Amino acid sequence: MRDQNIRALLTGREYPALKVVLNSMNNVDLASLLENFTEKEYTILFRLIQKEKAAEVFTEMSSHMQETLINAFTRTEIKELFDDMYMDDTVDIIEEMPANVVEQILDVTDKETRQTINRLLKYPEDSAGSIMTVEYIDLKKDMTVEQALKKIKRVGIDQETIYTCYVIEQKKLLGIVTAKSLLLNEEHVLIQDIMETNLIYVNTHEDKENVSKLFHKYGLLAIPVVDCEHCMVGIVTFDDAMEVWQDEVEEDMSIMAAMQPNEDSYFGTSVLSHARHRILWLLVLMLSATITGAIITKYEDAFQTLPLLVSFIPMLMDTGGNCGSQSSTLIIRGIAVDEIRFHDFFKVVFKEFRVAILVGFVLAAVNGLRIMLMYHSLRMAVLIGLSLIATIILAKIVGCCLPLLAKKIGLDPAIMAAPLITTLVDTCSILIYFNIATHLFSL
Amino acid sequence: MRDQNIRALLTGREYPALKVVLNSMNNVDLASLLENFTEKEYTILFRLIQKEKAAEVFTEMSSHMQETLINAFTRTEIKELFDDMYMDDTVDIIEEMPANVVEQILDVTDKETRQTINRLLKYPEDSAGSIMTVEYIDLKKDMTVEQALKKIKRVGIDQETIYTCYVIEQKKLLGIVTAKSLLLNEEHVLIQDIMETNLIYVNTHEDKENVSKLFHKYGLLAIPVVDCEHCMVGIVTFDDAMEVWQDEVEEDMSIMAAMQPNEDSYFGTSVLSHARHRILWLLVLMLSATITGAIITKYEDAFQTLPLLVSFIPMLMDTGGNCGSQSSTLIIRGIAVDEIRFHDFFKVVFKEFRVAILVGFVLAAVNGLRIMLMYHSLRMAVLIGLSLIATIILAKIVGCCLPLLAKKIGLDPAIMAAPLITTLVDTCSILIYFNIATHLFSL
Repeated sequence: MRDQNIRALLTGREYPALKVVLNSMNNVDLASLLENFTEKEYTILFRLIQKEKAAEVFTEMSSHMQETLINAFTRTEIKELFDDMYMDDTVDIIEEMPANVVEQILDVTDKETRQTINRLLKYPEDSAGSIMTVEYIDLKKDMTVEQALKKIKRVGIDQETIYTCYVIEQKKLLGIVTAKSLLLNEEHVLIQDIMETNLIYVNTHEDKENVSKLFHKYGLLAIPVVDCEHCMVGIVTFDDAMEVWQDEVEEDMSIMAAMQPNEDSYFGTSVLSHARHRILWLLVLMLSATITGAIITKYEDAFQTLPLLVSFIPMLMDTGGNCGSQSSTLIIRGIAVDEIRFHDFFKVVFKEFRVAILVGFVLAAVNGLRIMLMYHSLRMAVLIGLSLIATIILAKIVGCCLPLLAKKIGLDPAIMAAPLITTLVDTCSILIYFNIATHLFSL
Repeated sequence: MRDQNIRALLTGREYPALKVVLNSMNNVDLASLLENFTEKEYTILFRLIQKEKAAEVFTEMSSHMQETLINAFTRTEIKELFDDMYMDDTVDIIEEMPANVVEQILDVTDKETRQTINRLLKYPEDSAGSIMTVEYIDLKKDMTVEQALKKIKRVGIDQETIYTCYVIEQKKLLGIVTAKSLLLNEEHVLIQDIMETNLIYVNTHEDKENVSKLFHKYGLLAIPVVDCEHCMVGIVTFDDAMEVWQDEVEEDMSIMAAMQPNEDSYFGTSVLSHARHRILWLLVLMLSATITGAIITKYEDAFQTLPLLVSFIPMLMDTGGNCGSQSSTLIIRGIAVDEIRFHDFFKVVFKEFRVAILVGFVLAAVNGLRIMLMYHSLRMAVLIGLSLIATIILAKIVGCCLPLLAKKIGLDPAIMAAPLITTLVDTCSILIYFNIATHLFSL
């Protein structure tokens, strides 16, 4: 609807009307609307957006559109665009652009900004430094509330957040003052009397995942970042922290489904790239599964004599896999949200063991009943029941131990999810199954 | 360390020192620290917390601790505690408490508050109304910035957020004004000239999951909630939205691992309850897997003649399951973050088909090579290769279609994840495998 209106106005070259429509739209919606137009069209449309709004819309766009626009822009236009942008967004864009585009951006920035950009680019990829911004409001402890509010009025427009201000002395962070306490206190009150000194802050090299966890835990809007000498160097704002959190969830889910994580969207990833991200784990798991095959071969005589044995293999394998993946998912999530730690190891194992016993007996009973009804063989019911209980106990123990062990040795616990657990449990459950079978049926 | 210090001070009854230590702590940390003490101890400790701080610490505690404290408190203490609490937190607590405790809480609240609580309790469980607060700052459009700031100073202390203010006329929402624009504009400017009228808002009955998505999409701090007559009734703040979002992720992950979702923490759930949440799906999937077993029984003659056939079953089943779970995970996540919609059906299927072809050929080639080296049988290599490719195509198509179809008919797409997909694909892949085998080897 909106698309069509804008397209009609564009074809009719009704630029004043277009300006009104575009500038009244929400920045996020506007950026996603422009995706539906051709390069030529969205270049025209983008130029109709107000200067102050343009930078915010630009940061919401896809890298591809950003690149096209920069290439279409004059030097002055690029300068205007990046002058209005927050430093962390500039750095994010630079990280995504090819060298020639980066050159054009750096070319229009002043020396000081360029130095800051270069410093920010040097922080390790997953560190707090790489997602922080250097623009924040700093106050002095002997200012009054009135002076602080005046300073905010003077410099606030260029800051990503004005809701948390930082009290700095000789580059060291002394405390924070929220806009709320500035607004609720009288004008003559001194900053040092209302600042919060019980601080939550991170080091520049802190893993950005841990930073985003702090936002969740404490419900923060921004967190200060300090360097090794405890000097304040920047802040991470909650929008960036939420993005990190969302990325981590996507990454965990991908790894848990045996894929290498991919930062691009589903449709934004090519078929070839999708295949590349999925093939490695499939190969590893496929070749591991041949071990289970090799074990089966050893019991050829058994299932030659009693072919019915083969028909229970899928049920045993699937149940083992499902039980293992239930446990591993719970433990992986528990580790991710910091509920479960390595020192809980035995507590977790004991809990899973008891759950396995309960689940195992119920499943064995139901299945035993089914087998009695279908095949009238108590021995077969006992075989499947025992194998099920053993498989379930094994699957639950493996499923809870491996993520914890992975965490302990510094691997991502998400690797130890359903696919790997399933393959491991399969091998063991087949071994248990045929062992019990050969004894029970004297094969 | 801190625990021990506090325990030492508590044993020594050094209450003034304890007061200083407790009141200098962060509220979230303080709540989790109190968990480590006995009921008697934390009741004493809680009473040492400053009145204004106490309500915030209380809302961060576990339901069990909250219940104990309320039962230990006098009527006056309960009144003081709940007077300082935000309405949405009060409602959250009431929802968790047994009837006798709820009575004690309602007993100390005034008539007006009680009516509000009752209204909030009536909203459907997963609606915006159930997570909103009714405390927000309302302004009039003909106020000046100065008047607005004075109003904030007067009433702000009791509001959950003062960073977004709402311009109301005859109960209708006209616009929003951020604290940022109040702080950056001159005192004489009129609210109507700086208010944002391009509004993002939700209805009281909107699903809370959709509300939390809006926070993510637009980077909001709060969202206004209106009733059916478009009258403003409350706001949802970002901390509650983030909690909803985290709960949804946990819920999806549980369902995807064949468990019924559980709102309690891992250690907070009893063994019996863990078993109950896991057993239903395990039973359903176990019984479904017997279909695969029944198919195998039909091909008894085939694997009696060629026992090697059995040893490839685990590899085929695992690979099919993994391929299907890769696709379904991507699609379930794509649907969850609104990237993939039902009208993308054919686009998704075509994409997954091409990925399957690529992955299938690589896996078939690697496995073919292995079989040639191990068994020197070209026919066996061809059989496994063809079965693998067919299974992978099938798995990827089933894996991407089912979540989309589930969404279409109003089911949670997360149900159509690894476990169910695996069971379905198993049955088909076994059928394909034995069909090709009987033809190729004329069994």
